[in-house]
Amino acid sequence: MWPLTKLLLINILIATSHGIVHEREALIEKELKMMVGHSIKLSDREIEANEIIMDLKREEIDYGFWNPKDFNLSKHFFEYKEQVKDTKLYKILKSMPKGAMLHGHDTAILGPDYMLELTYCDDLWVCFKEDQSDVSFIFSKHRPTGWCETKWERAMDIRRSTNFRKFDAKLRKFFTLVIDNPQEVYTDVNTVWEYFMKYFIRTGPLFTYKPVWEKYYYHTLLALREDNVMYLEIRSVLPPLYDLEGNIYNSVDTAKSYKRVTEKFKKDYPDFFGAKLIYAPIRSVATETLKNYIKIAKEIHELMPDFLAGFDLVGQEDLGKPLKEFYPELANIGLNLYFHAGETNWYGTSTDENLFDAILLGTKRIGHAFALVKHPLLMKEVQKRKIALEMNVISNVVLKLVDDVRNHPLATYLSQDMPVVLSSDDPGTWEAEILTHDFYVTFVGVSSRHADLKMLKQLALNSLYYSSHRAKRKMVHEFQIRWAKFIDAILKDRPDRVHV
Amino acid sequence: MWPLTKLLLINILIATSHGIVHEREALIEKELKMMVGHSIKLSDREIEANEIIMDLKREEIDYGFWNPKDFNLSKHFFEYKEQVKDTKLYKILKSMPKGAMLHGHDTAILGPDYMLELTYCDDLWVCFKEDQSDVSFIFSKHRPTGWCETKWERAMDIRRSTNFRKFDAKLRKFFTLVIDNPQEVYTDVNTVWEYFMKYFIRTGPLFTYKPVWEKYYYHTLLALREDNVMYLEIRSVLPPLYDLEGNIYNSVDTAKSYKRVTEKFKKDYPDFFGAKLIYAPIRSVATETLKNYIKIAKEIHELMPDFLAGFDLVGQEDLGKPLKEFYPELANIGLNLYFHAGETNWYGTSTDENLFDAILLGTKRIGHAFALVKHPLLMKEVQKRKIALEMNVISNVVLKLVDDVRNHPLATYLSQDMPVVLSSDDPGTWEAEILTHDFYVTFVGVSSRHADLKMLKQLALNSLYYSSHRAKRKMVHEFQIRWAKFIDAILKDRPDRVHV
Repeated sequence: MWPLTKLLLINILIATSHGIVHEREALIEKELKMMVGHSIKLSDREIEANEIIMDLKREEIDYGFWNPKDFNLSKHFFEYKEQVKDTKLYKILKSMPKGAMLHGHDTAILGPDYMLELTYCDDLWVCFKEDQSDVSFIFSKHRPTGWCETKWERAMDIRRSTNFRKFDAKLRKFFTLVIDNPQEVYTDVNTVWEYFMKYFIRTGPLFTYKPVWEKYYYHTLLALREDNVMYLEIRSVLPPLYDLEGNIYNSVDTAKSYKRVTEKFKKDYPDFFGAKLIYAPIRSVATETLKNYIKIAKEIHELMPDFLAGFDLVGQEDLGKPLKEFYPELANIGLNLYFHAGETNWYGTSTDENLFDAILLGTKRIGHAFALVKHPLLMKEVQKRKIALEMNVISNVVLKLVDDVRNHPLATYLSQDMPVVLSSDDPGTWEAEILTHDFYVTFVGVSSRHADLKMLKQLALNSLYYSSHRAKRKMVHEFQIRWAKFIDAILKDRPDRVHV
Repeated sequence: MWPLTKLLLINILIATSHGIVHEREALIEKELKMMVGHSIKLSDREIEANEIIMDLKREEIDYGFWNPKDFNLSKHFFEYKEQVKDTKLYKILKSMPKGAMLHGHDTAILGPDYMLELTYCDDLWVCFKEDQSDVSFIFSKHRPTGWCETKWERAMDIRRSTNFRKFDAKLRKFFTLVIDNPQEVYTDVNTVWEYFMKYFIRTGPLFTYKPVWEKYYYHTLLALREDNVMYLEIRSVLPPLYDLEGNIYNSVDTAKSYKRVTEKFKKDYPDFFGAKLIYAPIRSVATETLKNYIKIAKEIHELMPDFLAGFDLVGQEDLGKPLKEFYPELANIGLNLYFHAGETNWYGTSTDENLFDAILLGTKRIGHAFALVKHPLLMKEVQKRKIALEMNVISNVVLKLVDDVRNHPLATYLSQDMPVVLSSDDPGTWEAEILTHDFYVTFVGVSSRHADLKMLKQLALNSLYYSSHRAKRKMVHEFQIRWAKFIDAILKDRPDRVHV
């Protein structure tokens, strides 16, 4: 070949490969612009803060990339949940305004340490099983008459007569799912749900003592505020409450109690934007029972139209009734709906198809929607109808839907700017902090290495947009003020720059 | 309320809920029509066979749904691979014409039992490490001079002088990744890849002995045929071969050897549609080495244009060079490309972005594309450009990308009729059957409970459509004949019907 022709050919080759390089950059850029957060414009200060945050994020991911054995986020949550709290990135996310918590179950939000405190309340009686494998609680002035394999004792008396530290450690285990060997004990979704349900059954009589109920809820709001969450929509089965005088309060009373405590809390902390209730009774019931639930929901709605956000059904979806069995009751309910749906990896089963039902019944948001990624048509419907997806990544790990969070469908939802909000479901039972752990896991483990502050801000904003709060604009305005302070604090904390 | 109004209202409610029921059915139907296989029209006989197959499938899934602890497919492949072979569904899938195997690596297709047979060939010498943790092989007329921690011994001599069964059992372990406690030993992607690479290094000198090389390949074709696969595109690094006379054959010779054996096999079994070669050398190399690879590829292409399908690069993607580093060399290669890309769950990293490069470089198919589900734009490109995705579900489980196959992104690809073909990557190393295990796992574990014979047929047909075989129409025609026989056999085997 003559040198000139050869030179020309080489130039063409280089040009083509340069062409591909540009096309590549354009495509990557275009895809990043499809991601959650793409429409956020960062200010100069935000861009600076973003660099700090992204350096920390990339450091964690890149270390994991080269040392996957040590990558926390592909392990079980129990293994790394405490350790990550010490990282700088976690602390930043902790201080970040995270908007609202839109998917949380009332008696599983605070962890075992706080629950242990509750067992110091007067008049608490406990009864252990013979083999010490479980415990029952009840508040009572006198020795309870309920059945007990061993004998009812006052918690206070046990603490006085035995080693109270030992006793507390023993009790604490009954308030958490956290164990050393989750993969061995929690072998499958049904098994872990059995343990999970036992927690609710066991703690029921502890919680439903009216003074404890109200105390726990007040502390829930405190914990939210402390985790930089400004508003809550809380799901509750609204159990009957009791007191030492023998009064039994019904579900409507329980709702009233929530409203009263919420109002008290807002008075005590006027910077908090309050809470609304999603009445969410158990899904595995007969139609007649469901009808009664709906009656209760309507009564609450009439009494407290501003406090009741809407209706849902709870309990393990696979073992509960599919929504389609309740069509006649749910189709014209006249209440806003916030259904759990698709919290499963049984593709093509009735649980999976609850997603169709939830959407057709007009749900405002979907709890979990883990299975939605397998439904291309429904993904479009969700975007079209602006149905928010309440994602609970850590919950899905603990409750055995996915092992490695990098395989969580949220990655796909984020990549397509689906209407996603992050929540935490039952953080207390797996000893996660209100929302920070879920933000951390999503940011480092689920989202793209490129996903940055824009995504974080959008996720927080989404939780406000998709809430049912009356004064969203005011809430968003306040959020922006807090966000600016958050950015200032990051920049102020920069280690390697002189403060000006 | 007056009775008449009430009656009217009830009628309206029922009508609305009926409306939703219909809308639900229509939506589900519409989504099923987006799935892989939707355009297949089943004949009456196929519909009958489908009922038999679907009864078996639903039985397995529904049992798992209620007893998730016993659901094989959410466990590690090693735990259930033998057991499922006895199921009726597996046997049907075994007998099913599965089309072509488009993604397989040549020295990892047959399992340890066959490899053990190879060690019975004359002139094989072995050398164990002092701690027995590894073994080296070499064929030689005389005692090898290569370094050995202990001493080189003839395999034949060891078998004569010691318990040969024990010796065989010891050797066999070096030919497989299958162990009792994979989750404990194969802790992460890099660790399992280390074991995996050791297999290739260890067995190299065993395979590259020319007579063994050709024998193994001939038996590979036999095994494919026996698994009802009709055509192969095989990836090879084309190592230099050797013989006892001291000859060393280069990569081009190795390609020639493959071509010759393929032709012999086709003569012996004229019902087999042959094989093509994808030259796929190691990706973690310097640019100069890559240039040399490309030179070799072009030489093979010139010599055997009909036998060489194209070019690829292999080795653990995370640790290899990203494709973008080879743009100038790959952009105008003048060969068909079949790149591995996105065999990772490190979202947003260079490995993940190999997907952009593979597509922009004009790849005909993508090996794995595990990460594609996180790239909405690329998913569209793949559909537009009709780039087939070579899925290897079991490989992704063994090599630690996903634990529970129900979370494999293939479910999403199937739901959107992406151009998917099923393959098995390196079935020998995890003791899977050529394609049947992968079809079984996909059918029962990954795809929708509703996905049926239409999907199976489409997957088999896809493997023919997306192959580079010259006479696709002829191959498809032959496939249809075999398919009809397969359907006949299913119907003939019906237990509960009198044969007419």
